[in-house]
Amino acid sequence: MSTDEDKRREQRRAFLTRAAGVAAAAVGSSASYARAPDPARSRAESARSEFEPFWGAHQSGIATPLQKHLYFAAFDLTTSKREEVTSLLRAWTEAASRMTAGRPAQPPERPLNVVGSVMAREAATAAGETPDYGPNTKADTSSQAGDSGEALGLSPARLTLTFGFGAGLFVKDSEDRYGLAARRPAALVDLPKFPGDQLVAEHTDGDLAVQACADDPQVAFHAVRQLARLAVNVAKLRWAQTGFTPSTIKGGTPRNLMGFKDGTSNPSITHPAEMARYVWVGNEGPEWMRGGSYLVARRIRIALEHWDRMKVAFQEQTVGRQKYSGAPLGQKSEFEPLNLEAVDSDGNSVIPENSHVRLAAAASNDGARILRRPYSYNDGVNVTTERWPPWHQGLEYDAGLFFLAYQRDPRSGFIKLYERMSRFDMMNQFVTHVGGGLFACPAGAREGEFIGQHMFEPQPG
Amino acid sequence: MSTDEDKRREQRRAFLTRAAGVAAAAVGSSASYARAPDPARSRAESARSEFEPFWGAHQSGIATPLQKHLYFAAFDLTTSKREEVTSLLRAWTEAASRMTAGRPAQPPERPLNVVGSVMAREAATAAGETPDYGPNTKADTSSQAGDSGEALGLSPARLTLTFGFGAGLFVKDSEDRYGLAARRPAALVDLPKFPGDQLVAEHTDGDLAVQACADDPQVAFHAVRQLARLAVNVAKLRWAQTGFTPSTIKGGTPRNLMGFKDGTSNPSITHPAEMARYVWVGNEGPEWMRGGSYLVARRIRIALEHWDRMKVAFQEQTVGRQKYSGAPLGQKSEFEPLNLEAVDSDGNSVIPENSHVRLAAAASNDGARILRRPYSYNDGVNVTTERWPPWHQGLEYDAGLFFLAYQRDPRSGFIKLYERMSRFDMMNQFVTHVGGGLFACPAGAREGEFIGQHMFEPQPG
Repeated sequence: MSTDEDKRREQRRAFLTRAAGVAAAAVGSSASYARAPDPARSRAESARSEFEPFWGAHQSGIATPLQKHLYFAAFDLTTSKREEVTSLLRAWTEAASRMTAGRPAQPPERPLNVVGSVMAREAATAAGETPDYGPNTKADTSSQAGDSGEALGLSPARLTLTFGFGAGLFVKDSEDRYGLAARRPAALVDLPKFPGDQLVAEHTDGDLAVQACADDPQVAFHAVRQLARLAVNVAKLRWAQTGFTPSTIKGGTPRNLMGFKDGTSNPSITHPAEMARYVWVGNEGPEWMRGGSYLVARRIRIALEHWDRMKVAFQEQTVGRQKYSGAPLGQKSEFEPLNLEAVDSDGNSVIPENSHVRLAAAASNDGARILRRPYSYNDGVNVTTERWPPWHQGLEYDAGLFFLAYQRDPRSGFIKLYERMSRFDMMNQFVTHVGGGLFACPAGAREGEFIGQHMFEPQPG
Repeated sequence: MSTDEDKRREQRRAFLTRAAGVAAAAVGSSASYARAPDPARSRAESARSEFEPFWGAHQSGIATPLQKHLYFAAFDLTTSKREEVTSLLRAWTEAASRMTAGRPAQPPERPLNVVGSVMAREAATAAGETPDYGPNTKADTSSQAGDSGEALGLSPARLTLTFGFGAGLFVKDSEDRYGLAARRPAALVDLPKFPGDQLVAEHTDGDLAVQACADDPQVAFHAVRQLARLAVNVAKLRWAQTGFTPSTIKGGTPRNLMGFKDGTSNPSITHPAEMARYVWVGNEGPEWMRGGSYLVARRIRIALEHWDRMKVAFQEQTVGRQKYSGAPLGQKSEFEPLNLEAVDSDGNSVIPENSHVRLAAAASNDGARILRRPYSYNDGVNVTTERWPPWHQGLEYDAGLFFLAYQRDPRSGFIKLYERMSRFDMMNQFVTHVGGGLFACPAGAREGEFIGQHMFEPQPG
């Protein structure tokens, strides 16, 4: 290992130690995502800041109060050169730091430098930056713009960009394309095929993933579009998904498209001990993943027409909660704990054995918890064939839940939880998992570094 | 004609006369859509009201400042009974008046009454309404809910619902299904097939259309979903499209996905004379269309990857405006008029002959103008094949412009304008029309009426 790298790793360790404390104190005031999208609060917050920090011990977009819009994109690497992968991650990190600060992806006077040519990129970086343009600046229009421009004049809208690595970055078609096979974390398993899975390749996996969240859909899409432009000849889009979450009037838990409140029992993003226990990778992981997290994405189509034909009482038995109050069955208010022991006069469980909340509860899963970051999606209508009664065929909403969940280890997180749910959850009659992936999201970066940089450096041992 | 109907038509005429004056004074303070989505203004407005009026001389959603989100849906009628069509329109009108006022589509204690059974519907209507439920109300959960519930706790978010009639309502497959063939307005033509059109049936036409606009995407989708539930056995969804528009910081004209400002030269929604001249149907139309308007919808896919490879100067020649300032070429600021006469030292037009703004300008089209209500759409990525150089095949953004435009007569509006643009506009290299339709949107209704009611009544002459 070179002396330079020794030094850099040393600095990194010190930074992580410092940053962990700061980050713990700074994650905001929302107790859970459930109460985050309160518009009154958002307005107050946005008066305070329309920015989420980019640099830090953790990537933003995980312990960040839920923004209103999502654009999620997965990319396949097309290059065979390791240095083009690192150049891409460097360019993405730089562009992300600019865009989350409300600036164009690249200075406009600098023409687009795709990282496909490492030399050109480095020359441009060495040349330094020039100031951002405003509407009255005479921008150079004689070349391809460094930024496509549709976010000019918009607020950064609390944009966050969160990067993840899929299994394909490490090994693809049994090939160790970039000499990274040995770096694949044990926790980055291949997700098992769960009962009922109908994953389609066009919405599944990817070597790299970007979660863009912002309070304006144009800002989120703009950001990914710039990243895709920077990736020409190195990586290409594999799939993408938009998502949204509503703004509740009084800061209540938002309802999902099934009409039920969703997100009530998340770990608290303001509780460092809970985050450390359930969300952030600790010493059990490789150094570059410490402070990072594993992201499970699932595109879950909901047969809304079928759901809407059910009696409300049956919907409540399926979910295990009351529809209107959000209270667990047998309780009075939303935030009362589940009483999984309660039985009715016939000796039947008040919260049915196969209800969604019982099967998802930490108490039913040896304490397993994950940080859900749920967005609804709505892609119009599509031809579909149901696998379940009433075996409806025809035009249905192409809508449902784009389920994102962060966890310290997917084996003790999503896989543990969903293994039983996929077999027993009554809700499976109404939902079908049609896409998604598992991604290792490295720790955050500090200024001058790029996301995932430490993975590419020689490792101890 | 019955005496009752005489009387009703008399009242209607008086109402229209009164309402026209009121409506002209009440359309809000925004000079054009271009400046509508200013967040500062929106905040001030929403403090004043989160509601847009539903009843009135005109349907709302036309001269209404642009909301942030759209869910557009087209339906095909499946019933053969005229009275089920009118029952549907009555149920839709009632539900729309409730939802735009922030109430559930139906009282929750009343189980869902699909209009497929007219008798059941009428019985329920006769039974009257019971108060709306809150979270503490003991709602009847023993039946299918009258509202699927996902908008509970949300602001009405300025929801508007605008209804339109496609040609299929009047004649379908040469059949006069409902005895309405003679009522088809002359202006409700079959749109010609324009050069370059690649309309796909899955995104085109429909017997009925609903434009739902709201500042929250869940509110817009919720509304259409309830209307679809009410239509079971009478009409079914044919296609649907989501859309969005960004919020500019300082009230500037929002940029479209091409990075250019879009909507600068719309007729003013606060200028009654302009609206009367270009948007509202006048005495030339049938009585039930007077105060209504014709809606042209076009799903316009933009080859963003291709566009982004162009030099900015070329983009500006294509559009005819400067990218960053929005000013017409040769001018300095956005709102300066186009100077179509200006030539450079070589005698070439400063605003190129085949540029988008020149071909779209009223001055190039015998004064024709339409009220554009443009939303961007973003449906992820899709496999595509370009018709134009560079004949790219592969995965591309399934994104672009969902173009909605209201006009007094499509023959002197969209068709007139697009006839030349479809052949000569340089922008055609980058855009493809892949869906849409033409719909006659009747005048507004007053309380107790339903949208389009007068079309179903015996006509004079």
